[in-house]
Amino acid sequence: MSEHKSTLYNDQGELVVPKAVVGRLSLYLREVQHLIRDGKETTNSTELGGLLGVTDAQVRKDLAYFGQFGHPGVGYRCQELVAAIKHIMGTDSIWNVALIGIGNLGRALLRYKGFHEQGFRIVAAFDVDAQLIGGKVEGVDVFHVNDLDLVVQDQCIRLVAISVPSHAAQSVVDQVVEVGVEGILNFAPVTISVPSQVRVIGVDLAMELEQLAFTVVNRDSSS
Amino acid sequence: MSEHKSTLYNDQGELVVPKAVVGRLSLYLREVQHLIRDGKETTNSTELGGLLGVTDAQVRKDLAYFGQFGHPGVGYRCQELVAAIKHIMGTDSIWNVALIGIGNLGRALLRYKGFHEQGFRIVAAFDVDAQLIGGKVEGVDVFHVNDLDLVVQDQCIRLVAISVPSHAAQSVVDQVVEVGVEGILNFAPVTISVPSQVRVIGVDLAMELEQLAFTVVNRDSSS
Repeated sequence: MSEHKSTLYNDQGELVVPKAVVGRLSLYLREVQHLIRDGKETTNSTELGGLLGVTDAQVRKDLAYFGQFGHPGVGYRCQELVAAIKHIMGTDSIWNVALIGIGNLGRALLRYKGFHEQGFRIVAAFDVDAQLIGGKVEGVDVFHVNDLDLVVQDQCIRLVAISVPSHAAQSVVDQVVEVGVEGILNFAPVTISVPSQVRVIGVDLAMELEQLAFTVVNRDSSS
Repeated sequence: MSEHKSTLYNDQGELVVPKAVVGRLSLYLREVQHLIRDGKETTNSTELGGLLGVTDAQVRKDLAYFGQFGHPGVGYRCQELVAAIKHIMGTDSIWNVALIGIGNLGRALLRYKGFHEQGFRIVAAFDVDAQLIGGKVEGVDVFHVNDLDLVVQDQCIRLVAISVPSHAAQSVVDQVVEVGVEGILNFAPVTISVPSQVRVIGVDLAMELEQLAFTVVNRDSSS
C-alpha cells in the first residue's frame, strides 16, 4: 500500500478524491472500530455498506481510491483496514491541537472524549479572560491568545479549533495563520478568510439542523 | 416553483438529490444571506461558485435539481433565492426543537445564536438532574426526560438535539422515537438505532477534525 497516495492526484496536481468519499472514510473507520470493539476480526463491503446505507459497490469504489484492502475469501481484516484508513487520513500518529475560546462550547470541546480516541490531543487552550489564563480547564493549560506563537511552536501544534464569538473570529484566525497553523476547525457561525495554504473546515451547527429538516420534509411519504 | 419537488424523486420514490448537493444548499443559503447583509440585491453562479470554491456550472446544476431560480441578464435575486432555498430545506417556517442533555455542550447549544437565525427555536430542554428540572437554562424551560411525551405534543416538537453522555444515548433516543419525534441531531459520539421513518444526523466532532487532518496531510505540495 506504500504507493496508494500516487492515485490521489491528477496530472494537474489536483486531489481527485471527491469530498464525499473522504467523508465516508471517517464513517467506515468508525464502523470498523465498532466491529473490532464487538470482537469481529473481518468484515466485507456488504456489511460496511449495510451499516452506512450505501451499496457494497460504493464501498469498494470508495476504498479503491486509496489502494487494495480486501483479501479474497476473507474480505477486509478489521485491524488492517483501521490502520490503512488512519494512515490515509493522517491520524496514524497523534495530532496536537489547540483550542481557542473557552466558553461553553470550548469547555464541551475540551472534555469531548471522541477527539483523543481518534488521534487528536488538545494540548493547549487560549482565551483573553485574565481569570482563566495561567490556570487549567478540564486539565488543559490556558494561555493568552497573544502567546500563540510560543505555544504553537513549543507544542508542534498544526491544527486549531476556534470557538470564539463570531465578531472575534477573523482576528483570531489572522493570528493563528500568522504563527503557521495549517488547519482550522471553525465553530464560529461566520465565514473566515485564510491564505490558500491554510485549510479550514467550518462547523455550522445550524446547517446540521437544516440538513435534518430537509430529510424530514422530503421523506418519501410512500416509504 | 410550485412543482419543484416533483423532480426530487425517481419512479421508485427514492430521493434523487445527492447528499452533497443538499449540503451545498445550506452553504449557498449562508453566502446569499451574507450578501444581503452586505447590501447586495443580486448575485450569480460565478460569484456563488467563487465564494464556495466550486465552478459556476456546479452551482447551476445544484440549483437545477429544485427549479429555475435565475433571471436572464440579472442572475439570482438574493431575497428570492433565500426564500426558495428555505422553502426547499423546509426552514421557511419555524421549527420547534427540544434539547436533551444539559452538559457543557447542551448549554453551548442553548445559547448558540445560529439556530434561531436559521429558523430553529429550542423551546424546551430536558435532563435528569433534579437541580435543573423546573428551572430555566439560557432562558429555556427544563423538564425531566420522562415528561417528553407531554412537552413534545404541547409544543409541536418534531426535531430534537441530543447531547447526553454516550452510554445514555440509545435509551434517550428510544424515548424520543416513542413520542413521535421525526428527526434527531445526535451529538453523542456513538451510533444509534432508529426505525426507518425517523431521520438521524450524527454530529461527530472528531470526524470534522479527521477531515481537516486529511486536507492538511494531502495538500498538493506544489500549490
